[in-house]
Amino acid sequence: MYYVFFTGTAGSGKTTMVKEFQGYLLDQDMDVAVINMDPAVEGLPYYPDLDVREYVDATEVMRRYGLGPNSSLIASIDLLLTKASEIKGDLDSVEANYVLVDTPGQVELFAYRETGRYFSSLLVGGNKSVNVFLMDSSLAKEARSYVSLLLLSSSVRFKLGMPQVNVLSKVDLLSRDELDALMRWGEGEEIVDHLGVIDEYSFELVKALLENMEVPPVPVSSNSGEGFDELYAEIQRVVAGGEDFATEENNSRQ
Amino acid sequence: MYYVFFTGTAGSGKTTMVKEFQGYLLDQDMDVAVINMDPAVEGLPYYPDLDVREYVDATEVMRRYGLGPNSSLIASIDLLLTKASEIKGDLDSVEANYVLVDTPGQVELFAYRETGRYFSSLLVGGNKSVNVFLMDSSLAKEARSYVSLLLLSSSVRFKLGMPQVNVLSKVDLLSRDELDALMRWGEGEEIVDHLGVIDEYSFELVKALLENMEVPPVPVSSNSGEGFDELYAEIQRVVAGGEDFATEENNSRQ
Repeated sequence: MYYVFFTGTAGSGKTTMVKEFQGYLLDQDMDVAVINMDPAVEGLPYYPDLDVREYVDATEVMRRYGLGPNSSLIASIDLLLTKASEIKGDLDSVEANYVLVDTPGQVELFAYRETGRYFSSLLVGGNKSVNVFLMDSSLAKEARSYVSLLLLSSSVRFKLGMPQVNVLSKVDLLSRDELDALMRWGEGEEIVDHLGVIDEYSFELVKALLENMEVPPVPVSSNSGEGFDELYAEIQRVVAGGEDFATEENNSRQ
Repeated sequence: MYYVFFTGTAGSGKTTMVKEFQGYLLDQDMDVAVINMDPAVEGLPYYPDLDVREYVDATEVMRRYGLGPNSSLIASIDLLLTKASEIKGDLDSVEANYVLVDTPGQVELFAYRETGRYFSSLLVGGNKSVNVFLMDSSLAKEARSYVSLLLLSSSVRFKLGMPQVNVLSKVDLLSRDELDALMRWGEGEEIVDHLGVIDEYSFELVKALLENMEVPPVPVSSNSGEGFDELYAEIQRVVAGGEDFATEENNSRQ
């Protein structure tokens, strides 16, 4: 059983990718389940096998406790902890080769609050997992934002301690030239020239960020299915043991 | 006129720091104004000179458009753009040496949506600015989270293109030993030993992150006022021209 998490900033296309990637796996006769971990999502294009809104619904939390939008989001995420054993019980009935996990709209709620890490450990148990981090290509086509998203991705990777695959999402919205430029940046080429004048610290950081990256972000379009083969291959490489992520040895899930 | 932004993850203590740092500056007979840029904040401990909730209030947006908590937050941030010229007009009446800007609870809404960057440019105009990034020390005392927060800080720095000062907030909640360890990490010492087994990529990234950092995060407590002198000195060093951030040359605000 492999757990595939989908994370990324609000609007990067997580939910759509979960839906379309589920379809892609089903088309290949694979056994797939989907879990929604976002207590605040207002509508889902797929039928989840487990939905945390059945335990905690942010809109309901807001009404019942008279909270504003921001505090209801935070309270909902944290309330999930009180339902942990109940959810864990229901989880045991979810069986599939691949379990796709859709995470909260804002990556911050998932990655930087303890609930996110605790819950992902609870879900994954002794199984293998991978985090697919979505870089919204409409943001990434600007060089500074590209670097910024790679840094955010690294930050999430350190925080969650899970093997990670970076994806450039929504590439169907890019022109051929824009996509080509992004692919070259992923190989560590040219991007420094596009950052303008930067200080020494930024320069060294960008160098370390790009030069040591094993695999450049995978360009994917959920609309056309472009890049799903490559994404699947990357996920396989990571979870099916090709790569032994040393970071995991130090992780509580192991 | 110097603009000092306060950013950081939800709960890192931005609003409290804005209030207490305002008091600190006032005690020294300095001329200070405060701007609230968070349309979703439910209560403020200070009196803002400009409050974006007068133009867009997230709770009101939620009710009026029947939105859920998550979409109302995003809609509110984006709606601010439609009020930009009105806000700009009112801004001209705010006059002070230091303008402290309290940003949305979740750093993601401010840093990774275009509104944040657009609005900060609008506010700052031709003046100098600095972004104080709060690293919550209750999170930062774990080595992986420390690195994760530094990466998030660098990500925000690249995205906003503004000189940045990192702060360890809420240090009054740390023991002496915990604080000492964080200070050594800030100097680039010992932290690698606390990360456990990490892969080559992570190692190179941590090295670049720590070795080239000019100034380690400043330990600050808004409760006791500890570290405010040092924070003020850092802000001065940056905005009063001591440091010429090359990153700004490439910025639309210049």
